Amino acid sequence: MAIIKNVGLVGGGVIGAGWAARFALNGSDVAVFDPDPELGRKLEAVLGNARRAYAKLMPGIAFKEGRVRIAASVEDAVAGADFVQESLPEREDLKRRILAEIDRAAPPRTVIASSTSGLLPSRLQAEMTHPERLVVGHPFNPVYLLPLVEICGGAQTSDETKILAEDIYRQIGMHPLHVRKEVDGFIADRLLEALWREALWLVNDGVATTTEIDDAIRYGAGLRWSFMGTFLIYRMAGGEAGMRHFMSQFGPALKLPWTKLEAPELTDELLEEVSQQSDDQADGISIRALETLRDDCLVSVLAALREQDYGAGAVLKAFQHRLAEPPETVDKPDPTQPLALIERTVPAEWIDYNGHMTEYRYLQVFGDTTDALLGYIGADAAYLAAGHSYYTAETHILHLGETKLGDRLRATTQILASDAKRLRVFHRLYRSHDGKIVATAEQTLLHVDTAIGKVKPAEGKILDAVARLTAAHATLDKPENAGRAIDW
Amino acid sequence: MAIIKNVGLVGGGVIGAGWAARFALNGSDVAVFDPDPELGRKLEAVLGNARRAYAKLMPGIAFKEGRVRIAASVEDAVAGADFVQESLPEREDLKRRILAEIDRAAPPRTVIASSTSGLLPSRLQAEMTHPERLVVGHPFNPVYLLPLVEICGGAQTSDETKILAEDIYRQIGMHPLHVRKEVDGFIADRLLEALWREALWLVNDGVATTTEIDDAIRYGAGLRWSFMGTFLIYRMAGGEAGMRHFMSQFGPALKLPWTKLEAPELTDELLEEVSQQSDDQADGISIRALETLRDDCLVSVLAALREQDYGAGAVLKAFQHRLAEPPETVDKPDPTQPLALIERTVPAEWIDYNGHMTEYRYLQVFGDTTDALLGYIGADAAYLAAGHSYYTAETHILHLGETKLGDRLRATTQILASDAKRLRVFHRLYRSHDGKIVATAEQTLLHVDTAIGKVKPAEGKILDAVARLTAAHATLDKPENAGRAIDW
Repeated sequence: MAIIKNVGLVGGGVIGAGWAARFALNGSDVAVFDPDPELGRKLEAVLGNARRAYAKLMPGIAFKEGRVRIAASVEDAVAGADFVQESLPEREDLKRRILAEIDRAAPPRTVIASSTSGLLPSRLQAEMTHPERLVVGHPFNPVYLLPLVEICGGAQTSDETKILAEDIYRQIGMHPLHVRKEVDGFIADRLLEALWREALWLVNDGVATTTEIDDAIRYGAGLRWSFMGTFLIYRMAGGEAGMRHFMSQFGPALKLPWTKLEAPELTDELLEEVSQQSDDQADGISIRALETLRDDCLVSVLAALREQDYGAGAVLKAFQHRLAEPPETVDKPDPTQPLALIERTVPAEWIDYNGHMTEYRYLQVFGDTTDALLGYIGADAAYLAAGHSYYTAETHILHLGETKLGDRLRATTQILASDAKRLRVFHRLYRSHDGKIVATAEQTLLHVDTAIGKVKPAEGKILDAVARLTAAHATLDKPENAGRAIDW
Repeated sequence: MAIIKNVGLVGGGVIGAGWAARFALNGSDVAVFDPDPELGRKLEAVLGNARRAYAKLMPGIAFKEGRVRIAASVEDAVAGADFVQESLPEREDLKRRILAEIDRAAPPRTVIASSTSGLLPSRLQAEMTHPERLVVGHPFNPVYLLPLVEICGGAQTSDETKILAEDIYRQIGMHPLHVRKEVDGFIADRLLEALWREALWLVNDGVATTTEIDDAIRYGAGLRWSFMGTFLIYRMAGGEAGMRHFMSQFGPALKLPWTKLEAPELTDELLEEVSQQSDDQADGISIRALETLRDDCLVSVLAALREQDYGAGAVLKAFQHRLAEPPETVDKPDPTQPLALIERTVPAEWIDYNGHMTEYRYLQVFGDTTDALLGYIGADAAYLAAGHSYYTAETHILHLGETKLGDRLRATTQILASDAKRLRVFHRLYRSHDGKIVATAEQTLLHVDTAIGKVKPAEGKILDAVARLTAAHATLDKPENAGRAIDW
């Protein structure tokens, strides 16, 4: 996979170690030089983070990891390298000196990239014998996860170098952004630095704490910025009238003291430039379509953060909990009838390419029904925590109808048989709007000791509750499809 | 659920309509005044967006929507309101005048909130008879999805008003942030405005286009900002040495011309203030633990955006596709043996509270196996698009072992029988590391005309492929558990 066999890294701090992880996990052999005596331990920590993140993010991909070696010197790190990345502290004198040293030691055609956040490549390449192969490749932390890398050449950088760097970064899953005009801070860090300096002013002036400032981003605009930048977002804020309307509506606000940064004069030329570029960017997509795209991305991001129970996801989780208390469990079902245990509306994520609910989601609902049944007989969280549970041994599902987006579903369960170790249940899934049964599931559940994973008899309250329910259901008719086998 | 029965909204643009949607979906009756003759259509469009987003984000919650009414005047909108939210254009004179009008018309104890992005409440309340009940409640677009709302009182605002506003916003799922010191732009918009003005300079100076500027955010720092702000992120960038190290390392960069915004002097006092606040914010959580939290959130957000195939998610998807080509489908399986069709590593999301793979994920893998079989016999995307498919009619699952996080799984399928309309298959799921069968699934699949949802015979190539495979598998032993029923 990797076209780059040997990567030489100079500087092994947070950024250098991040590069080591990204290259090694993509199969390159990596040599790292840094005078830090703790380098090995720090590299291993970042590599561990990266392995863990990749396994979660891309399950099923078998990464063939390259070797990570600690080099004895700058020369040792780069002498055999097919690509070099420098990630030293942001001091121009230091970078110039070491880049010249790298230049002398690396093979003559090897591209040398600098991770600098904003120093000018024309100045960094000044002391190099082969300045044409120096390019800025500015990544973002954590390097192994964030795709952005800014590519910026200096006055002497060759076009070939920029193209090679772009190619290499793409190979390791990054999104190269060419900075066409060499300016201090490039593009991203000019934006980040403006926000950062304003943030420092807020602390300096006693307006807000670091926590409040962080919250002002992560519960609001930060959620949008994970997939759309400010210009596209503001295009939508203009409503149907689009960017021109937004600019003219908020233009006067550029004169207000809403930041310590003075805005450029909103001349007709600038207004026209921004509007035209925004039109090009939107590429004919309507505001309505952009709104749908934005909302779909926000929904996905919020749902993802809800899983992590963090930031805006924690707010959503608490909100939903309040809205849905009790969410889907039906109160006090009649024990002499099949128990009506849960209700559920079919969400978009459950729909397959045929427009119907995906097969395995039926089992998800039946699994939830079984969980609700366990709750009903008293096998609650405390019971599970104490090392007892019922595990499914066998399931028979029969499909009797179709289920579509937004259908309201209701599940019932009937106990067919039980003993101390086993439960035989029959779930029915109804479509609420016409009362039709869309699927049934018959299951054998085994009572287990979860610590050792062995079947053992249930006892006390649980066994009593099971026996009572089994007796109550003994008067019900046996379902037509109970005990059914596939046999044709 | 909603404690606020009647909400009066003045201003029905993008923000006002967003408030209408958030309040109405939470059960409040809403009256909106805006002179825009298109108001009704625009409100309905935003309400439609919000309903769609909530249904996707919170499936299973039955929202009891309040009524949305177009009011004839400001007075009509607010006369019976328990809460008023003003969302007029950002013109101080206009807001002052209309807020005074609202003040005269609304019941005397009703809280009046302004959506202003940065005008000072002390000035907005100047013409009101009851200035104590005016508070800023600054939301972010789309209001129905983003939780942040900044609460800022003016000199005359009562504490009770701020507390009531906070309470109301929490009830509708928002995250109130109190702005303790009244400054132009509050907290969030000072940060957004600094970034925005720098962005306008970049376009003005011909450094970058709107697309490039947006990309510089959404492929990099924007991903982090969806859950952590700059201070916590930079704390980690300092590595194990933390915030003090970061500030001293990057302190000199504050003097570099990386933005048009001058930084405050990094005095000992400011350094100490930022470090101390950052320590408080981290609340004893180690850098390593913060990194894990950051990476877990990034993984979730990237995976969410991969589902949307947009922004960084599209980059990831393309990268993964290159890494995993072919991903999980096994090349050219031997047709005289049970077909080895797919392989899969168990991801974290598939693990339940017992530490094992959740029940319904087994059926997901078996469903994928069936899909791979359909691909094998030639029932590909084109075939499906032409209105043919096989639907599952019946499934029998037998659990024979446990599956844990990271287990590599391999599925095979054996054809037990077939005719023109039906396929009877037997899937086996193996754990690769010890070759043990962890589950089997027997299924009856029916060939259907998807347009009308009726069973119909397969024809041509597909039927030939099914017949060939059935004949090849006729020599195999019938699986021990084929035709099994639950019957005890």
